[in-house]
Parts: sequence; C-alpha cells; structure tokens
Amino acid sequence: MACGEFSLIARYFDRVRRARADVDTGIGDDCALLTVPDKQQLAISTDTLVSGIHFLADIDPADLGYKALAVNLSDLAAMGADPAWLTLALTLPGVDEPWLEAFSDSLFELLNYYDMQLIGGDTTRGPLSMTLGIHGLIPAGRALTRSGAKPGDWIYVTGTLGDSAAGLAVLQQRLTVNDKAARDYLVQRHLRPTPRILQGQGLRDLASSAIDLSDGLASDLGHILTASQCGARIDLEALPLSAALRESVPPAQALGWALSGGEDYELCFTVPELNRGALDVALGHLGVAFTCIGQMCAPSDGLVYTRHGEPVTVDEKGYDHFAAR
Amino acid sequence: MACGEFSLIARYFDRVRRARADVDTGIGDDCALLTVPDKQQLAISTDTLVSGIHFLADIDPADLGYKALAVNLSDLAAMGADPAWLTLALTLPGVDEPWLEAFSDSLFELLNYYDMQLIGGDTTRGPLSMTLGIHGLIPAGRALTRSGAKPGDWIYVTGTLGDSAAGLAVLQQRLTVNDKAARDYLVQRHLRPTPRILQGQGLRDLASSAIDLSDGLASDLGHILTASQCGARIDLEALPLSAALRESVPPAQALGWALSGGEDYELCFTVPELNRGALDVALGHLGVAFTCIGQMCAPSDGLVYTRHGEPVTVDEKGYDHFAAR
Repeated sequence: MACGEFSLIARYFDRVRRARADVDTGIGDDCALLTVPDKQQLAISTDTLVSGIHFLADIDPADLGYKALAVNLSDLAAMGADPAWLTLALTLPGVDEPWLEAFSDSLFELLNYYDMQLIGGDTTRGPLSMTLGIHGLIPAGRALTRSGAKPGDWIYVTGTLGDSAAGLAVLQQRLTVNDKAARDYLVQRHLRPTPRILQGQGLRDLASSAIDLSDGLASDLGHILTASQCGARIDLEALPLSAALRESVPPAQALGWALSGGEDYELCFTVPELNRGALDVALGHLGVAFTCIGQMCAPSDGLVYTRHGEPVTVDEKGYDHFAAR
Repeated sequence: MACGEFSLIARYFDRVRRARADVDTGIGDDCALLTVPDKQQLAISTDTLVSGIHFLADIDPADLGYKALAVNLSDLAAMGADPAWLTLALTLPGVDEPWLEAFSDSLFELLNYYDMQLIGGDTTRGPLSMTLGIHGLIPAGRALTRSGAKPGDWIYVTGTLGDSAAGLAVLQQRLTVNDKAARDYLVQRHLRPTPRILQGQGLRDLASSAIDLSDGLASDLGHILTASQCGARIDLEALPLSAALRESVPPAQALGWALSGGEDYELCFTVPELNRGALDVALGHLGVAFTCIGQMCAPSDGLVYTRHGEPVTVDEKGYDHFAAR
C-alpha cells in the first residue's frame, strides 16, 4: 500500500547481503515465497513497538533499529530456533531520510549478523510504530517450550538481571550513576540487549522449558509455572547481578529490578538433574554466564523466594520484608 | 507485551474452531510452531491498516474485521496459495468490548470459512491500526508471480472494476445513488470484497502472471509489465463494469474508477494462447465472471489503451481525451 513519497522509503529496506537459499521470492511480489527445509519446523513471533510506550520517543534511530530486531530475536532464542526471515511493517509520521538511513543501517547490520533476510513488509504514514514478524527454523520436535518443566528441575538464567531497568532509569534521569563505565554499561544493556540465540540452540536437547525475560523474572517465570503446572523456589542470594548494578543502587532496588524491572532479554530455563553436566559443556564456551537460581517444585508451593534457605516475602518492588537489611 | 487490561483483549482472539494439523503450537508460547507439509512452499504477506488512511475512522468494526483479513487474503489469491495461518498485531486506543466482540467475531467468521488459524500477534495501546501477517501454502513451484507474462499472452480480470471506489464515494457522501439495490451493492463491494482465492488456485498451471488489484488496474498492471518486461494493450470497451456502476455515474467516471479507483481486490492475470480453453474449464464453474481485456505486447509499446482498436489517451482520472463522449 506504499504510494507517493512513501515508496522512497522502501529503498532503504530493499537490500540483500546475500540471498538465503530458502527464499525463493523476496520483496517485490504479492507475497514472499519460502521453502522450509525438510524436517524443520517454523517458529513465528510478532511484536509491535509503539513510540513512547515500548521505546523512548527521542531514541537514537540506530538504537531503535537494533533493539526492535533484538527483542524479536529473543523470542526465537527462547524456542531454540535459528533466525531466518523478517517482515517489517513500519508506520512513520513522515519521510526523514537521515532517520531512515540510521534505522535501516542498524537493522540490516543485525540481520546480516544472523544471516537473516528481510522478505517483506509495509510502510504507512501515521504515528511512529512498527510491527516485526520474525521467522525461525528449528529441527522438528526439538523446540524449547514453556510447558516441559518438572518438579525437581533446576532453574537457570543467562547473564545478569536488572541492568536494563537501571539503564532505562539513567536515560530517564531517575537514576544518577557517577561512574562512567558503569553508566555506559547499564544504558547499553537497555538499548542493545544481546539476544541469546546461541544459548537457546545449545539448550535444545537439555532444557525442559525456556522463556525469554521481557517483563521480568517474576512475571516470566510465572508463565513457565503456569504452562508446566509446577511451583518454584528461587534463591534470592543466587540472582546474578552485575557489578555495575550492585555499585549503582541499594541492594533492595537491585533486587526489585532483577525480579521485575523487565527488558533483560536473558533466557530463563529449566534443566533436569540428569542434564546438568551436559549443560556446562553446551553453554560453557559461549562467553556468557549462566546461573542456577532455584528449583522447580510441586504446583501447590507456588512461587517461593528464599534467602539462606528460608522463605521470605518480597513485594513487587523487591523489598524483602523479613530479611535483615 | 500485553499487560493489565490489555491482556483481556487477548481473550477475544484466543479461539480455535478446530486446530489445523500443521499448527504444532499456537498462541501461548514465545513463538508459534508450524510444520509446512512436504513439497509445499510458504507464501507470506504483511499489510498495515491505519484508521483514517486505509479505512474510515467510523467504520463498523464487523466490516473492518472482515476487510482487514480479506485484503490480505487477496495477496494469497494473487499467488494461487491456500490460506493457512494469520498473525494479528492490533493497536487500540482503549478497551471497547462491544467493538472488540464485533471485530473479532467477523474476523473469525472469515478465518473459519477459509480453515485458517490465528497463530499469534500482539495487542498494544495507541492510535487504531493493525498489521496482519498472512501465511499460505502452495505446491512447490506452482506459485503465480508477476514476472512470467510474455508478449502475446491475453490479459484478464475477474469480476467487475470500479465498484469499490464508487462505494467509498457513497460512504463519503461524494456520490448519491438513488437506487437502493445499486447503492447497497456498491457499498458492499467496498466494505466486503471477496478475495479470489478459488480463482487463484484454479490459475496455478494456466496463468503466466497474476496480481491482485489493490491500487487500480492501471497501477497494478504496471507492476506486471515491469516485472515481466512487457507492454500491454488494454481495450477500454472490454473493461467489465457492473450494471450498478454504469447506472450510477457517467461513463467517464466509471472508466476512471475502473482504471484507478483502487480496492477492487479482483485478480488481473495473463494467460498464454495455449491455455485459454483450459481457463474456461478452470474458472467457469466458480460463479464469478472473468473477462479478457487486452493482450501483452513488446516492452517498447508500454501501456496502451485502445477503443475500437485505435489507441486513445486516458488521463489518470479516466477521461478519454480523444474518444467521443
């Protein structure tokens, strides 16, 4: 439905580093035509990002181009899928060529890194927003889901938690971090999250369930508990926090952001006891920490936080009412 | 990214008449998981519809639910694909339950008619707009494209042209049609276009190229000419116009809308001489007329309109400067 000056926009997105062999027809016909290789399943996810809601209205377009794709890649990572194709529906208030160039350069850099191809989309005029449709491939029957965890399985997360919420607070001037290295680290963790694609692929035959952390550990782990009909015990002492976060805010704030700050885009996954040794082999060489933070238990237990082995109550801001401060 | 009251919205879309066998995991995990049957290609198209641009802001939500899907189905029809899966990213200014019920009922009615399944999406708050990602299946190598036409191939369209533009003019009170049956027909042609799915499938081994008419014959046929590197001669006398259109507006206006009114969602396709007999067999029983309107020719000829065999000049509003009025 692009017309007039909006057809110019299409030029910024009509580039291919090299055509993927599974793309039979890309941009330029009524539909893209794709071939899913034999014995592979297709994984599809859709996300809409609206200016002022999902990203700051004054965000650098290069950061936006990166992050819009990265958060969608994170959904593929949570299934253990290989990234393949992207559709991009972009709604813009007008044609701003420097903005388009920075946005599209950054998007294509990440697309090319993962050997993905943009196969279609739409450009329309309106308040800034975008909908990405991401398509990945996965060997049949080996996808990670939210529903396979069993009581006794160990709960892990990749990387560190809470950094992104702190970075957002810095950007919104709700938090002052004097140390420049720490401040830059936290802001980058918010603007440039790394999708854990390699970790997801490594977990394919090891993890009993997985999810990516977009809303925060408390909420997202809750989806695994519901889908797997389990409870969980989480050891608050074990939650992985970066040095930058620990040095920048009080412990209660760090804990609150780790549990419910959101936008970490790390993976949370469960591993049966039998697979723990293989896990070290599968993820150990990928350069990103992974930390056991608790254990699945009977559904009647619900979600229990512990400190030194004892249950504690934590409110949604992470304040730990019964522990010593 | 749905949260709070917006999670309520998801309920309106979490319905399945019966699960398709090729949907391994539908709504409810990080991604949907799908299996493309052996020897089938996947056809994917994405369209964004913005309130006030692609549909009237006061449109009946039932008409919107129908049309949003129908125009996407039209892209599948143009490739000859079988409809399969839909993703829906819906941005709404707020939660209006009667609106949601009417919209989703209508959407699901059409989804079910074509045995499709909604496999995912997103609901966000913002100015009313939506992005649909439609996925169809097609026997490998048999898709219709824009690029296969050859000089000498005959050019056809399904149905009648220009009705939708007239219906829009009625809705916007730019056109008065006193005959109620004619008025209702034109308005319905605008609000409830029928995607030519069966025609597209019937054309798989017969047509050398195809496109659906969203912007208007002149513009959309131009895409076939560019992709196929051909010219075309179109006989203006042959353009199929409905009785309702002919009775409601002067001939020049009817011609203008037929050529460039847009939103007809009929198919325009080309057929080699050798396949013309088989065409009657393939499309003749489907209850919708198909009309030969011209012939492909050498690329140097460009797009030529003729009347009684003689070239005429037609401006973009359809006024025919050299013909008798």
